[in-house]
Amino acid sequence: MKRTLIKEILLSGEAGTEVNIKGWVRTKRGSKSVNFIAMNDGTCLGNLQVVADVASFDEDTLKDTTTGAALSVTGKLVASQGSGQSVEIQAEKIEVLGTADPEKYPIQPKKHTLEFLRENAHLRMRTNTFSAVFRIRHAMIFAVHKFFSEKNFYNIHTPIITSSDAEGAGEMFRVTTLPFDETPRNEEGEVDYSQDFFGKSTNLTVSGQLEGELAAMALGQIYTFGPTFRAENSNTSRHLAEFWMIEPEMAFADLNDNMDLAEEFLKYLIQYALDNCNEDLEFLAKRQEEDEKNKPKEERNMNLIEKLQFVADNDFVRLTYTEAIDILRNSKPNKKGKFKYPVEGFGTDLQSEHERYLVEKKFKKPVILTDYPADIKAFYMRVNDDNKTVAAMDILFPQIGEIVGGSQREERLDVLEAKMDEMGIPKEEMSWYIDTRRFGGAPHAGFGLGFERLISFVTGMGNIRDVIPFPRAPKTCEF
Amino acid sequence: MKRTLIKEILLSGEAGTEVNIKGWVRTKRGSKSVNFIAMNDGTCLGNLQVVADVASFDEDTLKDTTTGAALSVTGKLVASQGSGQSVEIQAEKIEVLGTADPEKYPIQPKKHTLEFLRENAHLRMRTNTFSAVFRIRHAMIFAVHKFFSEKNFYNIHTPIITSSDAEGAGEMFRVTTLPFDETPRNEEGEVDYSQDFFGKSTNLTVSGQLEGELAAMALGQIYTFGPTFRAENSNTSRHLAEFWMIEPEMAFADLNDNMDLAEEFLKYLIQYALDNCNEDLEFLAKRQEEDEKNKPKEERNMNLIEKLQFVADNDFVRLTYTEAIDILRNSKPNKKGKFKYPVEGFGTDLQSEHERYLVEKKFKKPVILTDYPADIKAFYMRVNDDNKTVAAMDILFPQIGEIVGGSQREERLDVLEAKMDEMGIPKEEMSWYIDTRRFGGAPHAGFGLGFERLISFVTGMGNIRDVIPFPRAPKTCEF
Repeated sequence: MKRTLIKEILLSGEAGTEVNIKGWVRTKRGSKSVNFIAMNDGTCLGNLQVVADVASFDEDTLKDTTTGAALSVTGKLVASQGSGQSVEIQAEKIEVLGTADPEKYPIQPKKHTLEFLRENAHLRMRTNTFSAVFRIRHAMIFAVHKFFSEKNFYNIHTPIITSSDAEGAGEMFRVTTLPFDETPRNEEGEVDYSQDFFGKSTNLTVSGQLEGELAAMALGQIYTFGPTFRAENSNTSRHLAEFWMIEPEMAFADLNDNMDLAEEFLKYLIQYALDNCNEDLEFLAKRQEEDEKNKPKEERNMNLIEKLQFVADNDFVRLTYTEAIDILRNSKPNKKGKFKYPVEGFGTDLQSEHERYLVEKKFKKPVILTDYPADIKAFYMRVNDDNKTVAAMDILFPQIGEIVGGSQREERLDVLEAKMDEMGIPKEEMSWYIDTRRFGGAPHAGFGLGFERLISFVTGMGNIRDVIPFPRAPKTCEF
Repeated sequence: MKRTLIKEILLSGEAGTEVNIKGWVRTKRGSKSVNFIAMNDGTCLGNLQVVADVASFDEDTLKDTTTGAALSVTGKLVASQGSGQSVEIQAEKIEVLGTADPEKYPIQPKKHTLEFLRENAHLRMRTNTFSAVFRIRHAMIFAVHKFFSEKNFYNIHTPIITSSDAEGAGEMFRVTTLPFDETPRNEEGEVDYSQDFFGKSTNLTVSGQLEGELAAMALGQIYTFGPTFRAENSNTSRHLAEFWMIEPEMAFADLNDNMDLAEEFLKYLIQYALDNCNEDLEFLAKRQEEDEKNKPKEERNMNLIEKLQFVADNDFVRLTYTEAIDILRNSKPNKKGKFKYPVEGFGTDLQSEHERYLVEKKFKKPVILTDYPADIKAFYMRVNDDNKTVAAMDILFPQIGEIVGGSQREERLDVLEAKMDEMGIPKEEMSWYIDTRRFGGAPHAGFGLGFERLISFVTGMGNIRDVIPFPRAPKTCEF
């Protein structure tokens, strides 16, 4: 008999139908005469209740139906007596496919800490919380591709291994096949990378943007969606050494087009989650409320679903860096010395505390900051007419801070080359990049969205290690 | 005035409408009084013809509208006099956004070799051939996600950096932040990886399968879609050091379910290309025909579109390895000594020449080979009742050979552990993997599809380096 997914049964199963389900036991309760087994097959949050008359099954089978065991159950769907679900299954045949010894199986039906589950990341997807998170993550992946496909943006797989080290986005991991013992060296005693696999020194990419620009200047509108890497010793709840980024790039676009695209994109993703992940979001919203019920009211977060709907429905605030500095300088926390990093004036690099003040206290909305000082931004950002700011933008969200960073790119060959000289970027090595300005150059713009930060915002999970299946961080590379 | 995409104009532009387009000059021809400029903006293969009365524009502007230059053109759509397209644009305003000096711009309107374009991979996406290939690649990415989403498979991002070295799928790249000079060493003089970024020795993943299995045993049905790596010194037209793989994994599935899924998946992708990439496929089909017109008839390939339709419409042939060996042993080329590697009997590892014989000569259809000798396959494949074969499958396609490799996984704890011991796989390090058999284990199966091989098949591009934007291979890591 062909297996039916529990998701399908809960959506549209009809009493009287004979079905086979396969899945895992979440809980079992019951009396001497009847057992109620909550079965889950991962396709949705909801369990299907299996009703088993104790007399109809041999003792061993029912003894083995403990939390975590894999079962195949055949029987008839019947109208459910309990609340919540319309049908349950009256078991005719139960086969234990795999047991889960309650003395040894780590995922028991009780509240485990997130830390404990992180150590058991190979099993944590079997919990309600993590299966909800990863189903939502999937929905967001699909929504990213759907959004861009419908707008005629083409997905480009930019390289993971790169010889370019000029992007300046952060510390890099070396990729090599050279041995540490008897490393080949040249006459000067330096490592001879010409004997490395790629014939040169190579690293893991920190961003697909520069290659993305090449593609945008050919296909018009592109986006990347791939892993990026930072070898930074940041052991925080906001950083990963390996994380996924989405980087759209548009030819013939300026900073305003860029902001419009980013705002539309974020709202689309959030609305998509609200429309398609309701059950999982409701669960996570309840989870958050329970977690925070002992906190003072002012420290509690907005209800997860209300928060998402609020962001999807309201315009983001747009203001320049210079305007933001004015607001911050004159703000109460700055005047009262409450900021760890006092805001003095133009040129100050904004810290998380400043971003949070703007988003959470001042505007109570997502904020797009634009036109940052040229000195604190990358070489490829377009210089504004004031000659001291660049056409950059950061989008700041409540709780998570910067979720998007982008800019209009410097398309003027002479300005770009002068900037590269000034910042010590090797022009010869980057000749391929400069070619897009030598030949058929045009205004263009793009941004990067940290995918895990998005998922963190959408699910309300506070630690970024809980929204990627197998997190990589300093001293952390399990599974 | 808001820009309109050329794709939209060619689909549904109406004469009389005033539009602005932005794109690049593909060609220019004309007389003293009128210039015809073919404009392309990357959104589709087709060009929009711009008609410019020479008298209406200054000389410099028209002089600068050379191949590769970026233009903004405003004007009225008018019914096209020429064939092929319904509308063209009567230019009222032309702005040159970026020039492309014909003396220096490498991509001139003539036939360039694929080798030349590979060296100019940063610009090759501006040609008809490569823009078609990468638009099709995008369509295939979207189709992969659509297919699995509709079937309730969840996309899982498995890790790129891994400390697991037991998969045995091939040579690996080391990922490290340790220096080659003054490398930290322990008392025995060995490299002290506890001081490396992750506190242990780490590599780039060769497959997401093992982690995918963990997810499937929680979410039921999953797929990965990410980059994988091989540090193998294979400088061929079929191998890349960095390539993308799709790896679905299903709980509660056997080898037959696996074959059914893989065949349905491949046909879906190919039909999706036929339905959605017609213009680009027609172009590539013509390109292939022209390429092969001087070849003897029997060496020419089937027309690209006919080939795709044939694969989408016909059942794949399914046979066991043992049956295939019988056929090969008794085949003409084997008897006449035409195979470089003679087929002697059970245990022979099939070579490309054997696979091609089965697919292209014997069956003239895609072939699924199953039940390979256990000795030549990986430790995780399920041992058959004969105790000498495993429930493996390879799907073989014409021209490209193996496009899919998969298996039912060994779910029996004792059999798996014995196999790991036998093959020297360290069980302690892989304890997380074995846990899926210890707790709630169940039959499950999955496969891997090499994405570039698929794109190679769909586009007819013979060299795999021409279907990924920036190929990585031995001594090749540009851009």
